Amino acid sequence: MVKTIDWVDGKVMMLDQSKLPIDVTYIECTDYLRVAEGIRKLWIRGAPAIGIAASMGIALAAQQIRAEGIEDFTKKLEPVYKTLLETRPTAVNIQWAVNRFRTFVESNRDAGIQHLRELLIGEAKKVLEEDIALNRAIGLWGAQFIKDGDTILTHCNAGSLATGGYGTATAPMRVAKEQGKKFSVIADETRPVLQGARLTAWELMEDGIPVTLITDNTAGALMQKGEIDLAIVGTDRTVRNGDVANKIGTYTVAVLCKEHGIPFYVAAPLSSIDFSIPTGDLIPIEERDASEVTHIFGTCRIAPEGVRVRNLAFDVTPARYVTAIITEKGAFRPEDLKELAEADKDISGLRIGAAQ
Amino acid sequence: MVKTIDWVDGKVMMLDQSKLPIDVTYIECTDYLRVAEGIRKLWIRGAPAIGIAASMGIALAAQQIRAEGIEDFTKKLEPVYKTLLETRPTAVNIQWAVNRFRTFVESNRDAGIQHLRELLIGEAKKVLEEDIALNRAIGLWGAQFIKDGDTILTHCNAGSLATGGYGTATAPMRVAKEQGKKFSVIADETRPVLQGARLTAWELMEDGIPVTLITDNTAGALMQKGEIDLAIVGTDRTVRNGDVANKIGTYTVAVLCKEHGIPFYVAAPLSSIDFSIPTGDLIPIEERDASEVTHIFGTCRIAPEGVRVRNLAFDVTPARYVTAIITEKGAFRPEDLKELAEADKDISGLRIGAAQ
Repeated sequence: MVKTIDWVDGKVMMLDQSKLPIDVTYIECTDYLRVAEGIRKLWIRGAPAIGIAASMGIALAAQQIRAEGIEDFTKKLEPVYKTLLETRPTAVNIQWAVNRFRTFVESNRDAGIQHLRELLIGEAKKVLEEDIALNRAIGLWGAQFIKDGDTILTHCNAGSLATGGYGTATAPMRVAKEQGKKFSVIADETRPVLQGARLTAWELMEDGIPVTLITDNTAGALMQKGEIDLAIVGTDRTVRNGDVANKIGTYTVAVLCKEHGIPFYVAAPLSSIDFSIPTGDLIPIEERDASEVTHIFGTCRIAPEGVRVRNLAFDVTPARYVTAIITEKGAFRPEDLKELAEADKDISGLRIGAAQ
Repeated sequence: MVKTIDWVDGKVMMLDQSKLPIDVTYIECTDYLRVAEGIRKLWIRGAPAIGIAASMGIALAAQQIRAEGIEDFTKKLEPVYKTLLETRPTAVNIQWAVNRFRTFVESNRDAGIQHLRELLIGEAKKVLEEDIALNRAIGLWGAQFIKDGDTILTHCNAGSLATGGYGTATAPMRVAKEQGKKFSVIADETRPVLQGARLTAWELMEDGIPVTLITDNTAGALMQKGEIDLAIVGTDRTVRNGDVANKIGTYTVAVLCKEHGIPFYVAAPLSSIDFSIPTGDLIPIEERDASEVTHIFGTCRIAPEGVRVRNLAFDVTPARYVTAIITEKGAFRPEDLKELAEADKDISGLRIGAAQ
């Protein structure tokens, strides 16, 4: 399976996604500043992948800190945290990683610095492994919806490249493949930033999953012809009532699915579900720079100089369009999602189907 | 108003649309081979515009033919027709222009060659004027659907650039502007060939009509926010039962309009209505080269090498999604369209509203 980041022989190996699909370049990071550069320059993107990168950056820094005692060691980790946090100020997963490692160091302050260095490497690897296991669990719950012969539409990249492995929307596909099912995928190119064309098509080809690339305009016509059996997408933020914020164009896919009676699934790790927001209309939607629309890769101009542009980065798909939300704890009807807010509630009766 | 082609001082002036919106270059054609080159190289595109170009090419050739008598003159026009017909073999409007001019020459064989040359210039100018008048009639019937303050969505380019003037989908907008109405337009960029970004946005800006460019993924989100009041698109071929073939993505716009209760209008000159085909599923849909999807402007690669692609050039919007079809003879419910098949039938009772 495509690996976007890994810990190899005391170094962090990071795939430079910004060059995909033209060049496949792995960058060897021998110090944490290089990891921070990778996060800042979007060599790595996707919330879980960024969290893993930050974790590995901290572990890498810990190997090189020269400290006199644990107090000094802890103090010298602070600028590392700060640098990582400043790479992408809105990425909650960096904050999450920093909190996790701060607590971890505190809990192991009596281990001795040399041993603590090793423990930190173990913890960073554990963050990666946990993410892979979590995504595989989404895949196990989601694979039940994929039948032999199906064609699956996906939008944007909620793939391996955005995570430690398996991806979220792509996890049911990868598990279905492990189970020997035969199916194919249609990837929306996903304008403006073309994550579908650049990333999803690439990573599925790398993993030997049959994939066909289309423009975003083409999904409707293929549904009309009966050529799409289900859609699976990821989510940037899903809220308490089951409304789903995801890459712009997801809502259009959902409306088309409804019109054609095609099931529409959302793969959502619990970490992406924000129970504090009651409904989707309260999710702030980022409007991004016009140049993403007027220029391809920042260089190839496709629109008149000075044209006015609306560039919404995300849209919100109301819960009524969503067939099921697939989490690592099971697949649920969107209206049942709120029951997951309390960690110890018995939700077994709400699960759709079974993990395969 | 933007002019894509005109007869000026004995020459044909042609806007090189293939360079838009980066460069605005008018090409001066002093002989018909240059006009043929322009059609072949897509300096000019759009069915009506191509018909006008062919007509002007014939008139231009006629000025330069040295002939001994009308028989010789007629004979020497044949290679001109042949060259023009070969530029774009499937363009019915070139065939239409050749037929019209062959008949015209035959009808005026006694005029004398020098006078005939002048008559042919007049006929070519008439083809242009007739097209402008026809589109303006579409605009007069269509402007009734545009209210002060409206925001109109359009897809692809069915604009001035594709015609002698006014365009088809843009004609109601231009007439509404003449009538002093205040409105704005949202142009879908229209992947893969980006006619919306390159052509529609450009020509509306040139004409001072407020226009905002969006990716095709964004229309649904704007409808959900209540920011679009109506959609007007063109058509490549509309058939007897009111099913509409148009640029890929049009069907998605229609489905989104239905979902949001937004009226969806199709501007269709009678020449684009094919009464010989009963329903839209019988319209052949061209599948085009993968490179249109994988490369921008043939140079900027955006997808993995060797990726499989489905590139449908058109889709079919079933009549039930269409609020009205706006022709030069009036606006009609799609189910009434078949009544227009007989040229002398009284259709006055079927018209929606009135020309403004």
